[in-house]
Amino acid sequence: MPANREQLIAFFAKDFPQAKCQIISVGNRSAVVTHPVGVEELRPGGTVSGPTMMTLADVALYVAILGEIGIVPLTVTTSFNINFLRRPQPAQFIRGESRLLKMGKSLVVGEVTIYSGDDPTPVAHATGTYSIPPQQ
Amino acid sequence: MPANREQLIAFFAKDFPQAKCQIISVGNRSAVVTHPVGVEELRPGGTVSGPTMMTLADVALYVAILGEIGIVPLTVTTSFNINFLRRPQPAQFIRGESRLLKMGKSLVVGEVTIYSGDDPTPVAHATGTYSIPPQQ
Amino acid sequence: MPANREQLIAFFAKDFPQAKCQIISVGNRSAVVTHPVGVEELRPGGTVSGPTMMTLADVALYVAILGEIGIVPLTVTTSFNINFLRRPQPAQFIRGESRLLKMGKSLVVGEVTIYSGDDPTPVAHATGTYSIPPQQ
Amino acid sequence: MPANREQLIAFFAKDFPQAKCQIISVGNRSAVVTHPVGVEELRPGGTVSGPTMMTLADVALYVAILGEIGIVPLTVTTSFNINFLRRPQPAQFIRGESRLLKMGKSLVVGEVTIYSGDDPTPVAHATGTYSIPPQQ
Repeated sequence: MPANREQLIAFFAKDFPQAKCQIISVGNRSAVVTHPVGVEELRPGGTVSGPTMMTLADVALYVAILGEIGIVPLTVTTSFNINFLRRPQPAQFIRGESRLLKMGKSLVVGEVTIYSGDDPTPVAHATGTYSIPPQQ
Repeated sequence: MPANREQLIAFFAKDFPQAKCQIISVGNRSAVVTHPVGVEELRPGGTVSGPTMMTLADVALYVAILGEIGIVPLTVTTSFNINFLRRPQPAQFIRGESRLLKMGKSLVVGEVTIYSGDDPTPVAHATGTYSIPPQQ
Repeated sequence: MPANREQLIAFFAKDFPQAKCQIISVGNRSAVVTHPVGVEELRPGGTVSGPTMMTLADVALYVAILGEIGIVPLTVTTSFNINFLRRPQPAQFIRGESRLLKMGKSLVVGEVTIYSGDDPTPVAHATGTYSIPPQQ
Repeated sequence: MPANREQLIAFFAKDFPQAKCQIISVGNRSAVVTHPVGVEELRPGGTVSGPTMMTLADVALYVAILGEIGIVPLTVTTSFNINFLRRPQPAQFIRGESRLLKMGKSLVVGEVTIYSGDDPTPVAHATGTYSIPPQQ
């Protein structure tokens, strides 16, 4: 059974207490997640670090998947690819919009587009594949 | 001119104060970097989170590149791909060994193999491409 | 200056005489290209071979780029990533719809979704980065 | 049970009659495969086309896998990533050397380095993941 936004927020607060991502919406094989941009997320040149964007993309896909299959924590990333498109303009957060391309029983594939603040031009694009453990 | 380990450690301490990676060695188009594994790096199931491994891989490649070209902070990741091979056994750190496959004037490509603690079986493998800004 | 469909068809006929792809449309940073499916494109199990889909994706991106910058034959792929989503249903052709995500002066990034025949469910999704040579 | 070189050559001749690749060696979770370079494989500028290198890499991984698990034709590529490192020097063939990084029951991950003729500098590097169907 699917998990809704409230259930996912509770799951992250309990199992990923260090995660900074905020779940804005989830459903229909997609999710919108944001990550605040502070001193820790910046790198020389005042731009958002690559690993911050990778973290956001991975979480945005994970949330979209759990939104479909429910809280199956052992769902894991098997491969991940990201292209950085342009340096993010300074903003207080980055936003990842994920969409599942294939929802198989054991393998899921999805894509994420990342934006900086309210700028409509994407700053990065990622795809990931996830393995769902066999369920009893 | 290349940068040595001491120079890179000083650069990271100053420009990436939040980074947890430790530079073990650098030179010959390669680097060895470790990342401690604590509560923040774990995820449900007691395994190391994907974003922690992505961060380590990205830093291990960045260090190998700066080891060749010197401290050019605006060197940026343009694309990154990672395959997760197996769940890391519990250990106090993960280790990334990077190697540059192509060292061009403006584009660099490298690969990284990630290990958990002293286990000789790799837990992840990544490749990345980096853009070096034109130098005066 | 951009190249239109007729110019691109003529360029492919002359410079890639062995290519089997057909350019259906091009423009607005996108392209639609098809590849016939015959005995040569099939693999055991009666499905379309992976390399056939990779070829189609690469051509669909290359066409979208030349549609923007004109016939610059030395534009080359620098990296390419593809996820296979499901086995294509038997059909007489596969179709790639490409879209450029970033159109830089020297680096272009785009994505392609691949369909089999008239089935609206995608069978593969690819991203690629391309390098444009400096122009006089 | 594993398949040896002769069995794999016979399988390719029968099931992939159009394939141009030659299996040089296979075993120990690795393979060496070559692809001839003729007019069909060249592209403007006299260099080897990207899809030719992708085809070679995919076959080199597939051969290494079947070398371990035997002739399981329905083993399929699930994702594939390639970085092009430099333009191949003119040569009569390109050579792919593959190595499996993970040999799971249902998922295999491997990497391939591609060389042109006898030049020891790699021209491309690829990684791929493959799905093995459940076996009776």
